[in-house]
Amino acid sequence: MNYGQIFDDAIGRLHSEGRYRVFIDILRNKGAFPNARCFAGHNGPKPITVWCSNDYLAMGQHPKVIEAMEEALHDVGAGSGGTRNIGGNTHYHVQLEAELADLHGKEGALLFTSGYVSNDATLSTLAKLLPGCVIFSDELNHASMIAGIRNSGCRKRVFRHNDLAHLEELLATEDRDTPKLIAFESVYSMDGDVAPIHAICDLAEKYNALTYIDEVHAVGMYGARGGGITERDEAAHRIDIIEGTLGKAFGVMGGYIAADQRVIDCIRSYAPGFIFTTSLSPVLAAGVLAAVRHLKQSNVEREGQQAHAAMLKAMLTERGLPVMPSTTHIVPLMVGDPVRAKKISDILLAEYGVYVQPINFPTVPRGTERLRFTPGPSHTEAMMIDLADALVEIWDRLELDLAHAA
Amino acid sequence: MNYGQIFDDAIGRLHSEGRYRVFIDILRNKGAFPNARCFAGHNGPKPITVWCSNDYLAMGQHPKVIEAMEEALHDVGAGSGGTRNIGGNTHYHVQLEAELADLHGKEGALLFTSGYVSNDATLSTLAKLLPGCVIFSDELNHASMIAGIRNSGCRKRVFRHNDLAHLEELLATEDRDTPKLIAFESVYSMDGDVAPIHAICDLAEKYNALTYIDEVHAVGMYGARGGGITERDEAAHRIDIIEGTLGKAFGVMGGYIAADQRVIDCIRSYAPGFIFTTSLSPVLAAGVLAAVRHLKQSNVEREGQQAHAAMLKAMLTERGLPVMPSTTHIVPLMVGDPVRAKKISDILLAEYGVYVQPINFPTVPRGTERLRFTPGPSHTEAMMIDLADALVEIWDRLELDLAHAA
Ligand SMILES: Cc1ncc(COP(=O)(O)O)c(C=O)c1O
Ligand SMILES: Cc1ncc(COP(=O)(O)O)c(C=O)c1O
Repeated sequence: MNYGQIFDDAIGRLHSEGRYRVFIDILRNKGAFPNARCFAGHNGPKPITVWCSNDYLAMGQHPKVIEAMEEALHDVGAGSGGTRNIGGNTHYHVQLEAELADLHGKEGALLFTSGYVSNDATLSTLAKLLPGCVIFSDELNHASMIAGIRNSGCRKRVFRHNDLAHLEELLATEDRDTPKLIAFESVYSMDGDVAPIHAICDLAEKYNALTYIDEVHAVGMYGARGGGITERDEAAHRIDIIEGTLGKAFGVMGGYIAADQRVIDCIRSYAPGFIFTTSLSPVLAAGVLAAVRHLKQSNVEREGQQAHAAMLKAMLTERGLPVMPSTTHIVPLMVGDPVRAKKISDILLAEYGVYVQPINFPTVPRGTERLRFTPGPSHTEAMMIDLADALVEIWDRLELDLAHAA
Repeated sequence: MNYGQIFDDAIGRLHSEGRYRVFIDILRNKGAFPNARCFAGHNGPKPITVWCSNDYLAMGQHPKVIEAMEEALHDVGAGSGGTRNIGGNTHYHVQLEAELADLHGKEGALLFTSGYVSNDATLSTLAKLLPGCVIFSDELNHASMIAGIRNSGCRKRVFRHNDLAHLEELLATEDRDTPKLIAFESVYSMDGDVAPIHAICDLAEKYNALTYIDEVHAVGMYGARGGGITERDEAAHRIDIIEGTLGKAFGVMGGYIAADQRVIDCIRSYAPGFIFTTSLSPVLAAGVLAAVRHLKQSNVEREGQQAHAAMLKAMLTERGLPVMPSTTHIVPLMVGDPVRAKKISDILLAEYGVYVQPINFPTVPRGTERLRFTPGPSHTEAMMIDLADALVEIWDRLELDLAHAA
């Protein structure tokens, strides 16, 4: 039994597949996003432009958010000092949960330390409370939902991505009295497409299933108040549990669910991943509170972001680059090979000061490795032209195909 | 299939057992810990003294921590904006991991969003990497370790709390070539006792098992530099993986492991709970960095805390109150019934402005419900006398037994 050898082999497999990950060491410049500094290890920090942040609306640098966090820091200090039940339930948590419940038109909301934990803890606990529950899961669901479903120990049935006929086929084979839960996302973050929420809810009603939606890439981004695709599509009332993150469009960190009070109460009372952990820092809760409140009444950020995403998509398409068909703010560029994706990303960083991380397995299926751009309201048209031209130059250099559309 | 009924029944069970949890809504007063405000719902905020915080050394209010967080907030903004691999790896993360590796004398360290997640993600991933692995787990291990072990899908063998003979008995029955992992805590936080680390390491060597220790309630608190019980007992080099939290003695939020570089690299590369989540806010990382650095060279906080814990234990014992035999900074008072524990806690809050949460199942076994006090360096002798006298008065009022020692 040589443990060291086993660990070395596990790392060796990643190297040989070309998907060993090297984390780029960066610091963003507050107030100057998307500008940042990269600590490449030599010659000190180097300026770069960040093109792959999920702080989609740059709320992490919004003056209201910074100010609220600073105030909380001075009012109550750094951490909560306890679990929600034992000393870690501050007034910020209570207020933020009320704000998030209101955002989604639900009776209650519950905070977690991350979106990952909210999915894992809620799905695993929910399904355990429902004896014999079967979970119907979209094949492209995020790793955190997959973890929660797996950890629930329930039977899982995977339906083809956004495929209503397949979902219905699976629902129809189960007994009417079997508890059922349909788990899916609104915006799929690596492809940028959107689920047919109303049609899924129709099936849920027909087969008496609960519905669980991950709006992680949509909260703050869609709907008149930032309530997500369920708000935009007026479907929130048809969904039993809406899950979101506080770390992307809201710019901070943390996760939550919104639902009926009794569902909230059950998860609050039974989920180990909620109960047995230090609660979210009140400083973070204060920042999110400011971000959510701001995005409830301001559309400028959402509009700027949508306009820039459309502009970048158009520029890349015009140049014949393989943009994937996204209907949202996400701009994925297909490469199809992990080594090549990393190479393009390395050249962009070293020669163009452009930071975009290659996306490889297990984040996306093998053979669909890609670059994923998230232009925000502060990326300028000039930055986009530079980026698009750089990509064409690299595509040429690596002798990759460009479409000759125009 | 009536989902609402199932959820209502689940909540009903908690009420009928007297263990439905009501979160106390509080705000600590920075700079004045343990003073805080309680939002009882009527007559506005009311001043209270917090006796159950796990911010053991009040580092969450330390000027260096607050200053570091403020600086980071202004330098880089609120959140990291991405996973560690995709845009969320800041210079603060890199520095903090180096600092934590150094604290434990290990080659590397890895940050997680919480101590819970570090246990869950590491244990489940580690065991999956070792084919056929058997995990030997202390019966009092924390819920987050139990979750990680369960989620690993491995075979688990539970040994009686701190019972070396039982652990050896179980180890001896397994094949020598089976991968083995012994998972335990240093300070058990609800009882306040400590594991025999060297003796467990002896067994690990004899039976060729890996060792995993949860030092959540010990990091920052024990050892000349705050490296935990493994530092105090000079055992860190014998432990394969040391796990800790950033949310208790370090006063902020987050978790980590420290280990050999290849173990770190494996968890970093294979653990979904590490990979697929927004990284710790750089503001939190900056605060922890300041806390760890401070506690590496300052013993004042540790000494004050130990002195006050000893003083409170002595006062409660003197008055015949049922203090449990703790050898650490934790002061548990046995009640043995969930309804009574809640009642005592309610009276303390309403009549004495003392906030101590009752600890009930599933945090501790049924029938061992208790109050758990965590006096810090800033709790004064006068506060302790008031507390001890209040407890005697309540014990009398509820006709509970007092020992007549003296
Ligand atoms: C679809 C989806 N759900 C959940 C998460 C997890 O959210 P968080 O980053 O807050 O842990 C992510 C990404 O991180 C995600 O892409
Ligand atoms: C022994 C032990 N391990 C792990 C944890 C989890 O740490 P965190 O609060 O950082 O999630 C806790 C308490 O919260 C604990 O008591």
